[in-house]
Amino acid sequence: MNILDIIAKKRDKGILNKEEIEYFVKEYTKGTITDYQAAALIMAIYINGMNENEITNLTLAMAYSGEIVDLSKFGNNVVDKHSTGGVGDKVSIALLPIIASLGVPVAKMSGRGLGFTGGTVDKFEAIPNYKTEFTMEEFIKNVEKTGISMISQSLDIAPADKKIYALRDTISCVDSIPLIASSIMSKKIANGANKIVLDVTVGLGAFMKNIKQAQELATEMLKIGKLSNRETICIFTNMNEPLGYAVGNTLEMIEAVKFLRGEETPEDLKEVVLELGSYMLKLAGKGDNLQENKQRMLENIRNQKAYNKFLQMVSNQGGDISYIEDLSKLEKAKYIVPVYSICDGYIEEINAEDIGKLACYLGAGRLKKEDSIQVSVGLVLNKKISDIVKKGDVLAYVHSNDEKNLQYATDRILDIFKISEAEIEKPKILLGIM
Amino acid sequence: MNILDIIAKKRDKGILNKEEIEYFVKEYTKGTITDYQAAALIMAIYINGMNENEITNLTLAMAYSGEIVDLSKFGNNVVDKHSTGGVGDKVSIALLPIIASLGVPVAKMSGRGLGFTGGTVDKFEAIPNYKTEFTMEEFIKNVEKTGISMISQSLDIAPADKKIYALRDTISCVDSIPLIASSIMSKKIANGANKIVLDVTVGLGAFMKNIKQAQELATEMLKIGKLSNRETICIFTNMNEPLGYAVGNTLEMIEAVKFLRGEETPEDLKEVVLELGSYMLKLAGKGDNLQENKQRMLENIRNQKAYNKFLQMVSNQGGDISYIEDLSKLEKAKYIVPVYSICDGYIEEINAEDIGKLACYLGAGRLKKEDSIQVSVGLVLNKKISDIVKKGDVLAYVHSNDEKNLQYATDRILDIFKISEAEIEKPKILLGIM
Repeated sequence: MNILDIIAKKRDKGILNKEEIEYFVKEYTKGTITDYQAAALIMAIYINGMNENEITNLTLAMAYSGEIVDLSKFGNNVVDKHSTGGVGDKVSIALLPIIASLGVPVAKMSGRGLGFTGGTVDKFEAIPNYKTEFTMEEFIKNVEKTGISMISQSLDIAPADKKIYALRDTISCVDSIPLIASSIMSKKIANGANKIVLDVTVGLGAFMKNIKQAQELATEMLKIGKLSNRETICIFTNMNEPLGYAVGNTLEMIEAVKFLRGEETPEDLKEVVLELGSYMLKLAGKGDNLQENKQRMLENIRNQKAYNKFLQMVSNQGGDISYIEDLSKLEKAKYIVPVYSICDGYIEEINAEDIGKLACYLGAGRLKKEDSIQVSVGLVLNKKISDIVKKGDVLAYVHSNDEKNLQYATDRILDIFKISEAEIEKPKILLGIM
Repeated sequence: MNILDIIAKKRDKGILNKEEIEYFVKEYTKGTITDYQAAALIMAIYINGMNENEITNLTLAMAYSGEIVDLSKFGNNVVDKHSTGGVGDKVSIALLPIIASLGVPVAKMSGRGLGFTGGTVDKFEAIPNYKTEFTMEEFIKNVEKTGISMISQSLDIAPADKKIYALRDTISCVDSIPLIASSIMSKKIANGANKIVLDVTVGLGAFMKNIKQAQELATEMLKIGKLSNRETICIFTNMNEPLGYAVGNTLEMIEAVKFLRGEETPEDLKEVVLELGSYMLKLAGKGDNLQENKQRMLENIRNQKAYNKFLQMVSNQGGDISYIEDLSKLEKAKYIVPVYSICDGYIEEINAEDIGKLACYLGAGRLKKEDSIQVSVGLVLNKKISDIVKKGDVLAYVHSNDEKNLQYATDRILDIFKISEAEIEKPKILLGIM
């Protein structure tokens, strides 16, 4: 086997076989294939594509390039959940404790944010002492003890994917559907899932800008799921405006906790949580009736079982639950400033990517992996698309630690909130299922 | 300017502008653009191609990435000659002294061999003490003094081309016509030529296996010549069988010297030398009548002016001309073994690439840049395509320093010389001009 032949084959639109793909993934992870050879092959894949067998073989080779989380002691219905990313996306935090409270074991690894999208692990940093790094044994023990553990991707999970992803980022090869699909699925498979529910976000604040692209990505992921024998469902959700109201790490944690307590339930967040959750319960063998599943989820919010499951997890992972029980104890930004509408009308657009970038600018996110973040800063929307607005109404609150950022943020908010004179229909949040 | 945008543009079949190409070449040569980014861009160029402006801009950017040989003191008709490579190709050695003897200044830089094709510089190593490395000033002085200098590409000529070529070799991107064309032309332009005669070899022993590919390459080089204001002519020559009889460094030097003396004139070598030379003389403003030009070349072989010019150059560059005057003094291989035909017939094929590889195996060439070569070894054909052959006739002589190689070489020769029962037409050596 020879990397030059493999590159030449894909360059000339050939189909790579399993052995060739495994050779590439293995030798590149080891370093015997160089970055420039991998770059040439990845560009050839980007331009000439891969068929479903190639994509599945790439996925499995990357999944098995490092440690595999062995969740077999939890049975054959271990369900994992993944989102293709968005702004204000606190679904994992709001959803998984409910699922765990219904007896489905949750062993979730999440990433950190990069660019305008946030990451679940960053949101957990809002809770003092909450630990996100565990060994494989500790992680499994967490799940055994409390039925749920949410940690960071700190284990040696799919190192080939990490290396290839980092390379793609430096050679303009990120937005390739076969490569995105195999990257997502390799991590889920390495994470030990045998059933997968995918939240495929679509719109201005998502990687997939329209439903057609999202369907292409979903199609690839479903094929991989099928060929790798992992039952997979894709749910398309609207990511034109941010999900819920809060954008920023502590702010989103507060919104998720209030959701779990049943205190505040933003309509869009609720719909996404219930939809994803009802399918997770179904795949986990906890009931085929989706409506009943949703009712049971709502019941466990009402009776505080979901919230208590969350507290149990936080406490088990070292977090100080007094900050959850009294959310006002969480660190606040130095400045919290309302932005007022300068006209009457209806909210027509709140570009989620622009909001994400603004939150990033305030310090909530990072542009480079090495950047540090400020957990307390961000934005809290006060209006969502289709809401009526009067001149002087608050559109959003800016949470910032730096007085110098306030004017820019205010100007941006006024620019990002597009206001129409005509009435605007409430956008659909659930866009379909595959 | 940003390399990610440049890569993405070419990835999406965009047209790179002059500034983008110059930025890439400059920053890659400096090292601020990494090998893996260059690899991704080159693969995108390989697959998606370049138009004539892009190719010309790439050529000029590479040409001007290092030193430019300033030959302006020799006027505006400085002609350079280049071959796309072959087996037994001693044309530069046999041709350029004739041209110089007719008053055209010759400042020629040549490469070393790699793979199955030989390099002119290696052939000069056959002559004891012949120096091929000079500073720019010395090189120009050589030409001023004797009218001719033939040296190695030791100066800092087109370093971007060197770096890009080395990278292409490791990422399966060698055989891209735009990249081959720009690589050749960048070196010629950096070498100070304002007129260029290109020997585009075609056939089993050439990079271009058929006339169509060769015409594509020629078309690109002619466009570059036109857009960069360098008058260029492409002459297609047959490289199915080796050129002349000798393959190997000292062996080819002997053949070239005998040709210059008028002692032995293999028909194919003679045709190529006269054809290329007649055009070089024309471009140099020494006469528009190609037939007359050829006659004047033959005359300077007969009257020994060409040979004396060669001796003058060798002597000026430190070479011991006693080895030229008495060729039997040159180092011989330890074993010189004839290979006899085992049947009667007509020679149908002598695959030049196979002969080149066999010479390489004997030690005449190198597989990796770092390999050392043995100047004395190689092959001397005794038959050429269309020659009649009787069982027991010598097909070729193997020159080897290692007894262990002889049996293998003998077997290979018998295999490489395809013999037909039917008469075979003498192949044409000159295949066209563009």
